[in-house]
Amino acid sequence: MIIVIKSEASNQEIENILTQVQRTGLEFSVLKNSEKTIILTQPNYDINVDLFKSLPKVEYVVTLNEDYKLVYKNINALETVIDLGDVKIGGNELIVIAGPCSVESEEQLEKVSLAVMKLGVKILRAGAFKFRTSPYSFQGLGKHALDMLEELKLKTGLKIITEILDYHDLKYFEKVVDIIQIGARNMHNVNLLKAVGEINKPVLLKRSFAATLREFLFSAEYILMGGNKNVILCERGIRTFSDYTRNTLDLSIIPAIKQRSHLPIIVDPSHATGKRDYIIPMSLAAIASGADGLIIEVHHQPELAYSDADQAIRLEQFEELMKQAKKVAEAVGRKLTF
Amino acid sequence: MIIVIKSEASNQEIENILTQVQRTGLEFSVLKNSEKTIILTQPNYDINVDLFKSLPKVEYVVTLNEDYKLVYKNINALETVIDLGDVKIGGNELIVIAGPCSVESEEQLEKVSLAVMKLGVKILRAGAFKFRTSPYSFQGLGKHALDMLEELKLKTGLKIITEILDYHDLKYFEKVVDIIQIGARNMHNVNLLKAVGEINKPVLLKRSFAATLREFLFSAEYILMGGNKNVILCERGIRTFSDYTRNTLDLSIIPAIKQRSHLPIIVDPSHATGKRDYIIPMSLAAIASGADGLIIEVHHQPELAYSDADQAIRLEQFEELMKQAKKVAEAVGRKLTF
Amino acid sequence: MIIVIKSEASNQEIENILTQVQRTGLEFSVLKNSEKTIILTQPNYDINVDLFKSLPKVEYVVTLNEDYKLVYKNINALETVIDLGDVKIGGNELIVIAGPCSVESEEQLEKVSLAVMKLGVKILRAGAFKFRTSPYSFQGLGKHALDMLEELKLKTGLKIITEILDYHDLKYFEKVVDIIQIGARNMHNVNLLKAVGEINKPVLLKRSFAATLREFLFSAEYILMGGNKNVILCERGIRTFSDYTRNTLDLSIIPAIKQRSHLPIIVDPSHATGKRDYIIPMSLAAIASGADGLIIEVHHQPELAYSDADQAIRLEQFEELMKQAKKVAEAVGRKLTF
Amino acid sequence: MIIVIKSEASNQEIENILTQVQRTGLEFSVLKNSEKTIILTQPNYDINVDLFKSLPKVEYVVTLNEDYKLVYKNINALETVIDLGDVKIGGNELIVIAGPCSVESEEQLEKVSLAVMKLGVKILRAGAFKFRTSPYSFQGLGKHALDMLEELKLKTGLKIITEILDYHDLKYFEKVVDIIQIGARNMHNVNLLKAVGEINKPVLLKRSFAATLREFLFSAEYILMGGNKNVILCERGIRTFSDYTRNTLDLSIIPAIKQRSHLPIIVDPSHATGKRDYIIPMSLAAIASGADGLIIEVHHQPELAYSDADQAIRLEQFEELMKQAKKVAEAVGRKLTF
Repeated sequence: MIIVIKSEASNQEIENILTQVQRTGLEFSVLKNSEKTIILTQPNYDINVDLFKSLPKVEYVVTLNEDYKLVYKNINALETVIDLGDVKIGGNELIVIAGPCSVESEEQLEKVSLAVMKLGVKILRAGAFKFRTSPYSFQGLGKHALDMLEELKLKTGLKIITEILDYHDLKYFEKVVDIIQIGARNMHNVNLLKAVGEINKPVLLKRSFAATLREFLFSAEYILMGGNKNVILCERGIRTFSDYTRNTLDLSIIPAIKQRSHLPIIVDPSHATGKRDYIIPMSLAAIASGADGLIIEVHHQPELAYSDADQAIRLEQFEELMKQAKKVAEAVGRKLTF
Repeated sequence: MIIVIKSEASNQEIENILTQVQRTGLEFSVLKNSEKTIILTQPNYDINVDLFKSLPKVEYVVTLNEDYKLVYKNINALETVIDLGDVKIGGNELIVIAGPCSVESEEQLEKVSLAVMKLGVKILRAGAFKFRTSPYSFQGLGKHALDMLEELKLKTGLKIITEILDYHDLKYFEKVVDIIQIGARNMHNVNLLKAVGEINKPVLLKRSFAATLREFLFSAEYILMGGNKNVILCERGIRTFSDYTRNTLDLSIIPAIKQRSHLPIIVDPSHATGKRDYIIPMSLAAIASGADGLIIEVHHQPELAYSDADQAIRLEQFEELMKQAKKVAEAVGRKLTF
Repeated sequence: MIIVIKSEASNQEIENILTQVQRTGLEFSVLKNSEKTIILTQPNYDINVDLFKSLPKVEYVVTLNEDYKLVYKNINALETVIDLGDVKIGGNELIVIAGPCSVESEEQLEKVSLAVMKLGVKILRAGAFKFRTSPYSFQGLGKHALDMLEELKLKTGLKIITEILDYHDLKYFEKVVDIIQIGARNMHNVNLLKAVGEINKPVLLKRSFAATLREFLFSAEYILMGGNKNVILCERGIRTFSDYTRNTLDLSIIPAIKQRSHLPIIVDPSHATGKRDYIIPMSLAAIASGADGLIIEVHHQPELAYSDADQAIRLEQFEELMKQAKKVAEAVGRKLTF
Repeated sequence: MIIVIKSEASNQEIENILTQVQRTGLEFSVLKNSEKTIILTQPNYDINVDLFKSLPKVEYVVTLNEDYKLVYKNINALETVIDLGDVKIGGNELIVIAGPCSVESEEQLEKVSLAVMKLGVKILRAGAFKFRTSPYSFQGLGKHALDMLEELKLKTGLKIITEILDYHDLKYFEKVVDIIQIGARNMHNVNLLKAVGEINKPVLLKRSFAATLREFLFSAEYILMGGNKNVILCERGIRTFSDYTRNTLDLSIIPAIKQRSHLPIIVDPSHATGKRDYIIPMSLAAIASGADGLIIEVHHQPELAYSDADQAIRLEQFEELMKQAKKVAEAVGRKLTF
């Protein structure tokens, strides 16, 4: 931390600031000339910077180190690769996760699953517990949907990702699910983050639509602190004034995360745009920007979907997407196997 | 709901749309001229509007009714007034809730509490369980802080408001707390909303910094649906590009809520601005805009606060605020008693 | 300027940075310990900070002074008061400017003007040259409207404020207009700012709906640099995700500007909210927050207005506004004379 | 236009609305059942929708047609291709425009130009008149820079694009420049748009950082209305809460524009991100999303650039970009020739 003290500070005021610095127990040195006093402390993650900012006559405080540490990429560290057996997330291979927004019925689930499986998909997404803005909207089939997903898994060998809303449901999720999803609206749910930090299942952490990059990485840090290293980040659009898409897909976060963190990051163009027609171009753009994969809503009859009907793509569009995605992946030196 | 069907729709396509309408079980009528077909249905809260929007040849769908119902102000309904015995929230009287960001120690708690009490405050705010972006920041004293608040309450008669993060802590809160606070980051935490909906304690629901007006009212609706009618709304700033305040205080929401809902709404200028110097003018502005009260962070030594040190006002500033607030309240026909 | 140099910088690299510092011609001193090198320069407004930020091994650059100078409030400087003869803007008195969005006809202009005059208004707003998003919308009556305003002025003694779009029209404006308005969309129009900086007429500068505080003050600085000290700032809402008002009125900018600048600032709740029903509460809030006045759209038949019909208030609402505004003004120690 | 009238409207009130509809001169029909009255009019671009929205008892107004007409893609219309002789913009070929932010000196201009030319660039970007937020920043070499660009053009055959700030400079631009750039801050400058609409030069219109899709297309419409069909759109990032990039690059606008308009659209990742390290991934993403080209800031010594030093890429990075861009272009069926 560097503290710049205003030139008009009295000796007593400088003393007061130094007292606070001493309380932190950190080593420090004082730089001084006729105009300014500057205090430099040893780097540390736990300093309450706000406290120092508010001390009288403090002009500026800057910390010298990144303040999220486990998510941060150290110079020699390896990129995290999530190992799900025959599927890996991170590394050179691209992953495409697909499936319906919600589990609606056994018939619907089977139809979509078998269709996307045939097109190379190894991880199925399908909502059991749904977050809905309105209490009057369809809230998902819950535990019953988990049972259907378990059966499907046994029958097909598909890996399953589905969203958790309440950490008290973890016992059901651990049994059935291969990747636990934390939705955008739960990115700040500290107790849920801590709970999934204590198990070993991979976690897909979606960026809140109002989260800064720093807040996003801090939420991941909560999980890593618990011991669970298997975190996959996911960009799904931020809330802006722009009104022709549901959210604004912020693809620049892909290189920004790659620069800072060893964690893999994938993109959800379905929730980002909310518009079926933009899914293919935005998926290709995501791959070209360096994303480690995609998560896509697919439905065999989108117009009849119980939720998010506008954004699910049809099976034939998904087939087209996979074909084009393979080419762009190769153009940027990545592999999309199916 | 009104469904406008494109002129090029075939009879078969119109038939398909009608089939979906019939499935809803609602009464409807069809308006038609040479150019257009329009279907009007009976008003209903449960229609999946998205489904209709995505049907082929549907040009436009508009619902004819507000889709949050319990929070909505019906023409003859009374404004909700929260009755806490000798204190009421809503109605003609203005409420000022004040206290430190966090309970830090018995000494600090007592010092601030007695001081604000002397200035007329009857409801004390003080954080026990703190949400923090960084896992390395002070997270509150938790259950221990609740105990200190209980003791303070016995000693002083102050009413207590504090934030809940996890609905499994409700048992502790019910015993001690007079108003349960749902923080901005939990506005979308459906299980927490449902849990506080099933008890009888008043709930202060803060607007998420990324919530639209509609989402805010829907979160309140989740609580009201459970049977708990004692909800107080709170505006605390939204996230925008503007960078000289922590958030942008969106005061227009006061008349907008008053127009739509019978629930009281108060303003938190401390979290909205994040700047001590703007608390007084923004508090006065809140009162002038029609808010039912204020919730203010006060600290006897803000520069030593464990959290949010920049935004807590000093005791002497709080005294000044109360004096000016009383005058503006009277100017707009409200009463601030102390 | 403070430049913090990374610890791994070689002597050669530090030398290079020093060379760049020397080129600025500023005095400087170098602070150094085993870990860090810090260069402090004499304050200066013209430094290309970006250059220093991009030099190799520079970790951080901070300037020590506000970089807009003429708009800035120096400790002993007086607040700017715009003197229009019998009307003053700034100082203890509050100003209410009112009138129709556009000049539509002599009849309409006269009706609204006489009515607001009777209610105490001394400065009339009325658009002659209109900015419109769509080229197919009503673009104002232009020069012809200026002529009508001139006649009105002679007849009634009202002061006139109207918006300029093109600095080549200045000659017409100088003759007729008492305050020249620069609209939000022209806040960045440097040539227009420079042109009005070279004359002596008071200028009302509206904040762009996407301008930061710093950009807003810099636009005022362009005018002041030309020699014209008579600048009035105006907040009229910023563009955010929030969708129940046209823009989000950012009232916190009032105390923020008062803290930094000697210029008066008024509020335009009509364009900020775009909703007739919110004009009164937001006007009162503006006064309570410390604004120096209001600019309000009033129309005798808003539903027939050629532009912005949703936001103009009726004459009886304006009368009510004036009554309430007077009371709130007194509550905060200001005077509203009429 | 469809006007939905509230059920409680009296016959007199419905009559009043019909009178306003009749004034438009449009054909219309009235649909009515026991609950509702709906008026349908013939499609028209010039209706003042706001007027109808504000009439008493009007519940909803919807227009049936896109209200920008020349920029709109009619079903059979061809995509616009800008023909610059041996270079075309739009169509199957991708264009890469490159060069320094500003013309700084003959030496700098020549160095960068020859270098990018060698890498296949045929259109050079270089600022002569610079918009700067601060009046104390470098404002460009102006007319003198245009002279240098003219000489360069003669010597090298490079096409030139540079930004115009004031339409009174058009005479200089017409002589030298191949594409006239309207910067983001001038997207709403109606007089400038009209002026370039009346000449035949191709115009690059940048999206304002606060413009909706509709406002962006309307600004293009102003140019097309004057007769100039040679408009190229450019996405350069929007202003959001996100703070790790200068702006948020909104790539979804590429498929959104392609769906609506026949105009070509290119992407400026330099201004969008403001970060050198993100230029390559964002350029590739832009191509994958369907953009017709790129405009890139390149400098031979970015750390010494007079403006935007953080975002200009080095020559060797530009070479790498061109190599990778070629591959991604081919993957999406486009050609990048150099």
